[in-house]
Amino acid sequence: MTQLADRPSTSTGPADSPSTAHVDAAWLGDYLLGTWADARRRARALAARPEFQRQDGLSLADQRARVLDQLGLLARSGTVHRAFPTGLGGQDDHGGNIASFEEIVLADPSLQIKSGVQWGLFGAAVLHLGTERHHTALLPSIMSLETPGAFAMTETGHGSDVAAIGTTATYDENTGEFVIHTPFRAAWKDYLGNAALHGTAAVVFAQLIVRGVNHGVHALYVPIRDENGFLPGVGGEDDGLKGGLNGIDNGRLHFDHVRVPRENLLNRYGDVDANGTYSSAIASPGRRFFTMIGTLVQGRVSLDGASVVASKLALDIAITYGSQRRQFVAGSPTEEEVILDYQRHQRRLLPLLATTYAMSFAHEKLLTAFDGVFSGARATDADREDLETLAAALKPLSTWAALDILQEAREACGGAGFLAENRLTQLRADLDVYVTFEGDNTVLLQLVAKRLLGDYSRRFAKADAGAVAGYVAGVAHEAAVNRSGLRRLAQNVRDFGSTARSVGFVRDGASQRQLLTDRVQTMVASLAARLKGAGRLSSVDAAALFNANQNELIEAARAHAELLQWEAFTEALAGIDDPGTARVLTWLRDLFGLGLIEKNLAWYLIHGRLSAARAEAITAYIDGRLLPRLRPHALDLVAAFGFEPGHIRASIASGAERIRQDEAREYYRDLRESGTAPVDEKTLRAQAGR
Amino acid sequence: MTQLADRPSTSTGPADSPSTAHVDAAWLGDYLLGTWADARRRARALAARPEFQRQDGLSLADQRARVLDQLGLLARSGTVHRAFPTGLGGQDDHGGNIASFEEIVLADPSLQIKSGVQWGLFGAAVLHLGTERHHTALLPSIMSLETPGAFAMTETGHGSDVAAIGTTATYDENTGEFVIHTPFRAAWKDYLGNAALHGTAAVVFAQLIVRGVNHGVHALYVPIRDENGFLPGVGGEDDGLKGGLNGIDNGRLHFDHVRVPRENLLNRYGDVDANGTYSSAIASPGRRFFTMIGTLVQGRVSLDGASVVASKLALDIAITYGSQRRQFVAGSPTEEEVILDYQRHQRRLLPLLATTYAMSFAHEKLLTAFDGVFSGARATDADREDLETLAAALKPLSTWAALDILQEAREACGGAGFLAENRLTQLRADLDVYVTFEGDNTVLLQLVAKRLLGDYSRRFAKADAGAVAGYVAGVAHEAAVNRSGLRRLAQNVRDFGSTARSVGFVRDGASQRQLLTDRVQTMVASLAARLKGAGRLSSVDAAALFNANQNELIEAARAHAELLQWEAFTEALAGIDDPGTARVLTWLRDLFGLGLIEKNLAWYLIHGRLSAARAEAITAYIDGRLLPRLRPHALDLVAAFGFEPGHIRASIASGAERIRQDEAREYYRDLRESGTAPVDEKTLRAQAGR
Repeated sequence: MTQLADRPSTSTGPADSPSTAHVDAAWLGDYLLGTWADARRRARALAARPEFQRQDGLSLADQRARVLDQLGLLARSGTVHRAFPTGLGGQDDHGGNIASFEEIVLADPSLQIKSGVQWGLFGAAVLHLGTERHHTALLPSIMSLETPGAFAMTETGHGSDVAAIGTTATYDENTGEFVIHTPFRAAWKDYLGNAALHGTAAVVFAQLIVRGVNHGVHALYVPIRDENGFLPGVGGEDDGLKGGLNGIDNGRLHFDHVRVPRENLLNRYGDVDANGTYSSAIASPGRRFFTMIGTLVQGRVSLDGASVVASKLALDIAITYGSQRRQFVAGSPTEEEVILDYQRHQRRLLPLLATTYAMSFAHEKLLTAFDGVFSGARATDADREDLETLAAALKPLSTWAALDILQEAREACGGAGFLAENRLTQLRADLDVYVTFEGDNTVLLQLVAKRLLGDYSRRFAKADAGAVAGYVAGVAHEAAVNRSGLRRLAQNVRDFGSTARSVGFVRDGASQRQLLTDRVQTMVASLAARLKGAGRLSSVDAAALFNANQNELIEAARAHAELLQWEAFTEALAGIDDPGTARVLTWLRDLFGLGLIEKNLAWYLIHGRLSAARAEAITAYIDGRLLPRLRPHALDLVAAFGFEPGHIRASIASGAERIRQDEAREYYRDLRESGTAPVDEKTLRAQAGR
Repeated sequence: MTQLADRPSTSTGPADSPSTAHVDAAWLGDYLLGTWADARRRARALAARPEFQRQDGLSLADQRARVLDQLGLLARSGTVHRAFPTGLGGQDDHGGNIASFEEIVLADPSLQIKSGVQWGLFGAAVLHLGTERHHTALLPSIMSLETPGAFAMTETGHGSDVAAIGTTATYDENTGEFVIHTPFRAAWKDYLGNAALHGTAAVVFAQLIVRGVNHGVHALYVPIRDENGFLPGVGGEDDGLKGGLNGIDNGRLHFDHVRVPRENLLNRYGDVDANGTYSSAIASPGRRFFTMIGTLVQGRVSLDGASVVASKLALDIAITYGSQRRQFVAGSPTEEEVILDYQRHQRRLLPLLATTYAMSFAHEKLLTAFDGVFSGARATDADREDLETLAAALKPLSTWAALDILQEAREACGGAGFLAENRLTQLRADLDVYVTFEGDNTVLLQLVAKRLLGDYSRRFAKADAGAVAGYVAGVAHEAAVNRSGLRRLAQNVRDFGSTARSVGFVRDGASQRQLLTDRVQTMVASLAARLKGAGRLSSVDAAALFNANQNELIEAARAHAELLQWEAFTEALAGIDDPGTARVLTWLRDLFGLGLIEKNLAWYLIHGRLSAARAEAITAYIDGRLLPRLRPHALDLVAAFGFEPGHIRASIASGAERIRQDEAREYYRDLRESGTAPVDEKTLRAQAGR
């Protein structure tokens, strides 16, 4: 929680009348909480309670035991059952469930992810891949945590490439059972939460083999432990200490011809009848696989949201501290600067604040799309595909950004940032794995690139070069006009003298959109042209051609995802009625948009979209205008995140630093006034020299 | 240690005859170990012994106790006494001491830094700031660890700005004692290793006040604890759990009028006689302060080197794993790709390998400069100033790079990278604080920028505009010619068609040097012009002017430091006789140089140093030529780091992954050959569809 008293009264000059700029932090706070504000508030209330919070310095065993206990408390609180059917005590509230889950990161990421394993992966697999018989028989004890379970999909040998897992589930017609088997070491299930200690069952993904035919990856419910340990045929290992999330007992599992009844197949998308006949409502094995795997999207959605929450917390801590901490005498001989008044400090933190707002608004759109699909309200195949692409685009950017933001915040707090009591290092350690689990970020961005290329080729399968050029120039007529306008201006920009005038064009939202959109479209079109012949090549040569363009494919996907974030931020501006708040948020959006353009400035210059003068003006505008304008509102912008002391729990953001600073300044003031202050040797020498 | 059998036999085509390229890893290994190879080898032998290594999963208390015990072992090994006087059992070997210290990071960064606190800070302060009486009386028990001690400089309120610390040491003429006092909470000493538990003495930095005159910051030797705990007047707090380095007992200290004899002043640069008269051989208080603080440079030098060692280790682990790990079928239907064959994976790791080589060669130059100054062999004021600037330039880049490299390596190893058994996350957590301690990186880069501006203004204090332009165009005539050549070529580059021809110019070392040098000089000249009037402004306005350019000052310093790394790499090429090794290392240098240019491509475009076509060609050359050429040598390039299994200790880099992959492939091969393999439903459907 930030203190109003810290806000400097800095004026930023008459341009754009920033004197009317202000932030209605209370209103903005509600706005940021979004559609599922109630669920978020309830979860935050839990997260503020010490019994749900991480405790530093516990041994690995104690930390795991504590988080298991907390999971039980969570189960009894009911907050984690929102997504389950109303008939079983849930609320069929998919968006609210994820929103609530995301806020638990404030208590402890270990608790968050362990609850995600139990109810979001293990339980959700039974819910989404199972049918009525599984729901009735299994969900109540999963919901209550009577049956802690593991989600046994990933193997040591295969993470992102789930289709290639080695575990088999072979149907035995004689006994009506499936035989679960691990054929080699690389097919051990690995990194599974609840597998090392607490899980008594698992949803096991395996190649389903019936009468000599492999029907591809399916999920089965498999008991793995009782009070005496592993059940016969089941074995495993503890993954031991990890880089973070040590409240979770990740481990490995392997199966030696373990038999489960036919009914344990989670049979919503594929079933085997008593006669040993396989059937599925989805004829294509490929489409069936992706439909089953599609339920995993909720993990990606929730990691995107949790990363937003953690980023907000990090910036609240660093910006609060930066507004109180004084270091180095700058202008005045007795007063040191508050470090957030240094340009570099602003450059380090304020663009990250803009990114966090963009991530927050983009996440709200993602969660809305998710709720539409999972509630069934907007759940066409196209909706599902859009949801998956959106999640695959946003999750990499936000999880990487959270690590960068936590790191920058920790460095901006100096040595104090390294202490566990200030939370930043531990949060970063815990969130580290978010960038590679639930879909490795690099793999996800490639999925996005494939989708972009697919859309592009569908559109232009039979189109001539003119249509392609039109697409690249912008879908709408207006956009095409803008772009030629841009080009023309770029040629003439040397005529403009001042920074303000040459940046003026880019400052407005439509131009930012044009530049960002143009880049995505041009990159995709250029890649499509280069990959055009791939279909006629041998599989080896086609793979080589794709591989030679892999880096650019990923960069195109990233550019697309950044555009989505920018669009979400811009759309959110339209919902702000208060002119002062809208003005500040527009500056923040500009900082985000111009930051993206600045990051990719070489591309815009190479492709003739910006002149050199205008490119330079962008940096000058960020440093000279946007940062000074936003600086006075920085504390309000983090206050709008709405965190209470029970969420922040970082001693440097508690106001202790301001008290220390005030005490020190008072000491020196008193000393000066008392007349007993020692004289500096430097001063004496200067006097003597005169 | 990497396996020769993993090396692919990929040929990269006839251009530049890469068929003759190879790496003599054994020779290169010796070359990389540098001048102090013996010291490094001895320290590595220690680091390979389990009793010196980090043990995962210990409680905070046990970890601290273990590292203290290890420190005792180190003391008995003698390796940590190299820098001390021969007369006291040391070797007066300053370079060897730092080289040895750097390698200890392979055992455990906590052990490294705790030994740095004891002998590199606490002991070194007594050695360098004290005189004969202190050496004889104090050093033996410091060297033996009989007296563990803290280096009490940093305060909660002042880290980087040492001159502003609040602790006072006031001379009492009546008793001949100094009174050490902490006047307010912000003046508590903080983050001090050995302060929470083990330290029995401290070197305390304080404002030295004698007869009402403050002579500035001086250091005093102060006993703080005996077997019963803190001595009277001394108090403190434990900093508790940290983001890493938890083998060290960092803590806080405060003093309530604690008295020490006059003789406890470490009096090499400033003394108080029995009559209470202050004297110093260095008249200027400012110069005296910077001379005393100058001994701190050894911390920066050693962190630079330790970051190089940790980066090498991270890349050895990730590149070894990337050469064994298979994922996703690409070209072949049965054989998956080794992940290092993916372009993106190469893009992620090989430029970092190039950076690590550059850092390693640059560090060797830094260590040589350090040894020259500390041994007295090359120790003029100019040598000292150059050493400090070089350390301030390189330490930020290498400590930040180490974090990036450890993180990229961890992500490149996926979930396995997150496990403590693979070491990457723990090393990253431990090295995190390297970027803000021993001089905050951002502050250090500002020191470098000030030096660059100072040199510039000294050079041009009375020069006319023409001389300035000449400087910017390049110091040497040849360079100026090159630059105009560059400009002219840039205009005509559209005439060139192929990538190879348009990048040809930049590929050679002289052009890379020209581009990198030109950027530094132009940035400095441009900043100097903007800051020119600062001297005539009020202090408030001058500070505001500097602040408005702070970001660019730091970027100029970074550009300068990158140029130094590039120069060191290029100089090192000249020492390689074997043509095959020289060829590969030249490619690696090109990857480093072109990578720097690519990173700052917008600058080169804006300032007309590169045409758009050439700028694009640089990226194409990296992706299309350098990465494929270097890929077959990646394992040799990490083998040259010379690590043994006892240094690596990461299960994924032990060969276990290859064994798993081989076993899985053998299983599928046997299954196919046995004729009992299940048929894929997909295949059946395809056959049925025909």
